[in-house]
Amino acid sequence: MRPTACKRIEQVQDPVIPIIGAWIRDNPGTLSLAQGVVSYSPPDVVAETLGSIDPSDPAICRYGPAAGQDALLEIITDKLLKENDIDCVGRQVFCTAGSNMAFLTVLLAIANVGDEVLLVRPYYFNHQMAIELAGCHCKYADSTPDFQLDIDAIANGLTDRVRAVVTVSPNNPSGAVYPREALSEVNRLCGERGIYHIHDEAYEYFTFDDREHFSPASLPESLEHTVSLFSISKSFAMAGWRFGYAVVPEHLTAAVQKVQDTNLISVSGVTQQIASAVIPLGQAWCKQRIAALSTARDMVLAARDHLSGGATICQPQGAFYALLTLPARRHDLDVVQQLIERFKVAVLPGSTFGINSGCVLRVSFGGLPLERLEAALARLTAGIREL
Amino acid sequence: MRPTACKRIEQVQDPVIPIIGAWIRDNPGTLSLAQGVVSYSPPDVVAETLGSIDPSDPAICRYGPAAGQDALLEIITDKLLKENDIDCVGRQVFCTAGSNMAFLTVLLAIANVGDEVLLVRPYYFNHQMAIELAGCHCKYADSTPDFQLDIDAIANGLTDRVRAVVTVSPNNPSGAVYPREALSEVNRLCGERGIYHIHDEAYEYFTFDDREHFSPASLPESLEHTVSLFSISKSFAMAGWRFGYAVVPEHLTAAVQKVQDTNLISVSGVTQQIASAVIPLGQAWCKQRIAALSTARDMVLAARDHLSGGATICQPQGAFYALLTLPARRHDLDVVQQLIERFKVAVLPGSTFGINSGCVLRVSFGGLPLERLEAALARLTAGIREL
Repeated sequence: MRPTACKRIEQVQDPVIPIIGAWIRDNPGTLSLAQGVVSYSPPDVVAETLGSIDPSDPAICRYGPAAGQDALLEIITDKLLKENDIDCVGRQVFCTAGSNMAFLTVLLAIANVGDEVLLVRPYYFNHQMAIELAGCHCKYADSTPDFQLDIDAIANGLTDRVRAVVTVSPNNPSGAVYPREALSEVNRLCGERGIYHIHDEAYEYFTFDDREHFSPASLPESLEHTVSLFSISKSFAMAGWRFGYAVVPEHLTAAVQKVQDTNLISVSGVTQQIASAVIPLGQAWCKQRIAALSTARDMVLAARDHLSGGATICQPQGAFYALLTLPARRHDLDVVQQLIERFKVAVLPGSTFGINSGCVLRVSFGGLPLERLEAALARLTAGIREL
Repeated sequence: MRPTACKRIEQVQDPVIPIIGAWIRDNPGTLSLAQGVVSYSPPDVVAETLGSIDPSDPAICRYGPAAGQDALLEIITDKLLKENDIDCVGRQVFCTAGSNMAFLTVLLAIANVGDEVLLVRPYYFNHQMAIELAGCHCKYADSTPDFQLDIDAIANGLTDRVRAVVTVSPNNPSGAVYPREALSEVNRLCGERGIYHIHDEAYEYFTFDDREHFSPASLPESLEHTVSLFSISKSFAMAGWRFGYAVVPEHLTAAVQKVQDTNLISVSGVTQQIASAVIPLGQAWCKQRIAALSTARDMVLAARDHLSGGATICQPQGAFYALLTLPARRHDLDVVQQLIERFKVAVLPGSTFGINSGCVLRVSFGGLPLERLEAALARLTAGIREL
């Protein structure tokens, strides 16, 4: 008798990146506007630090503390105070192998089987996957037509079973940046209800037009119920290192430690040493790289003029994503496949992010150098005109 | 209103290693027979490979395939065929950040909320924690008095809700090595029932007295229902790197990929390159280091003569653990705390491994060089005589 995978896993959507990655591999020469990566290189300090590592150092070869090495936690605490105005007194920082893991770890620590978690739609697909995997259910609050937070929709979604509200700013996939007022409102709602506000800040450094990034854990009333997630994947071009961290209220320390011990134990010692060297570079290092992304964003917006028949691109305020809406009622994954096979350009389907009305595509403009981005956008607009 | 951690997390035991780690830190000079680590250093090839890494190589700085880099998967496939007689045709290898994660990943792919998983008691505590965390329930089958598999007990434990049987050989915490016949019986039972047999082989190289390690995935009938878990933490003294892998039936590929994408995405690129250099060293490299462990084992057995009043130590056949049973009905965690505070020697309490009758301690003899092991054992026997 042959066993099979479980039902819980059927609730979890197929990971879209590997599927589209396979189509790209099958169509050599495809330019990718699909994956969320940046085109610049990691800081030079990575090579220097690697060269100084002693593999027989117990901090490298033996298990480390669940939260992270003391020196690294101090660096992160310092960064949070200086850059995010987050005071870590009464909070605990936990280092994880990437920010996805930070989300899953917090979720398993706070949500029972059958509980609900509220996502703002369009949502980041890995958040939805984690909620289903944990045996919880997703509730959705649609954002406004320009992809900002709809506070009424969020308030209306807060049933008694909702354990947390998740916000992402700068947003993946819409590129929206939520202002202080809106995030404060969500945070206040969560505090009143006695539920958690999980805020994903992976793109904290990526804002355009001097728009300000805001961390809700900097709010005076946020201490007991606010969780913040950070990553070095995007900012320092180090997705392959798998390093992120969560900042949680201190009362969750024991719970998060249990999850960490069961899943990862601790982040790789080498990765922690590299993170210790990179994180202090902070926003100053990233700012120079992000300047070029602003040009990339303008190129995407200029591509609007080459679209036909009512296709639109919403203006990104941050991150490096734009949502392209096609007027025709077409199946978005089919459109993506045809764009790759016939026009050698890849984007992601909006349905992956929970966009179920109309045909919407996510364009990631961070991963290609500008001249290749230009070519990719020409292919994209040509493809959309002809499809 | 202040939110709290969830009920699910209350089912998960407190991680014992951080608790005892804190007692050790509070009592400087304590010799540790607690954590499962080896005293030797990682292979020289680690430093060489680290020196050759280019941080801007996409294989290092960008996301990698969920299962692992092709070159590494090939190396692992080759190793499995040569050393474990496991043919990977019809199977998929998944690299994870440690073998704990490999277990949790497989569990989330195969078990629904409310399903049962059968553990052989004494069990490895992280397996029990993962099952509770996944919203599943543990069933237990006691092993025989000499810590071997009790096939009848396992067969009797197989209710309709049991999705998998977990075996660990060489065993943590007992040091038992399960013979081919017993593992084949368990594997056959699982096949007949249409459930999975998850076999943890983290200590595959650690056997004494020429005892043979057996991988049930080498059995001809094992293909559809057998999962094997491996680690480099113990064998190559690289626990701090967080690298392990699971070998799963091919029909689980899509399910495991979903979990991997939600949790880790992929193992750190640097870690994968290091693993690629280390794994081919294989059993040959480890054999020389493990020779010293055999002497350490003999020292533990010799310490039996210094115990009094009916305390016993069961002879380990593999791994680097021995179970020490005290005749008195005392609370094991209290004994552990007193051993640390009064005698400056640390061990783990048997209750952590599900041993609820009598007072049993796990002695890990892999982590100290021989002269310090001798001192630690003298403290341990003195402490047990006097407590």
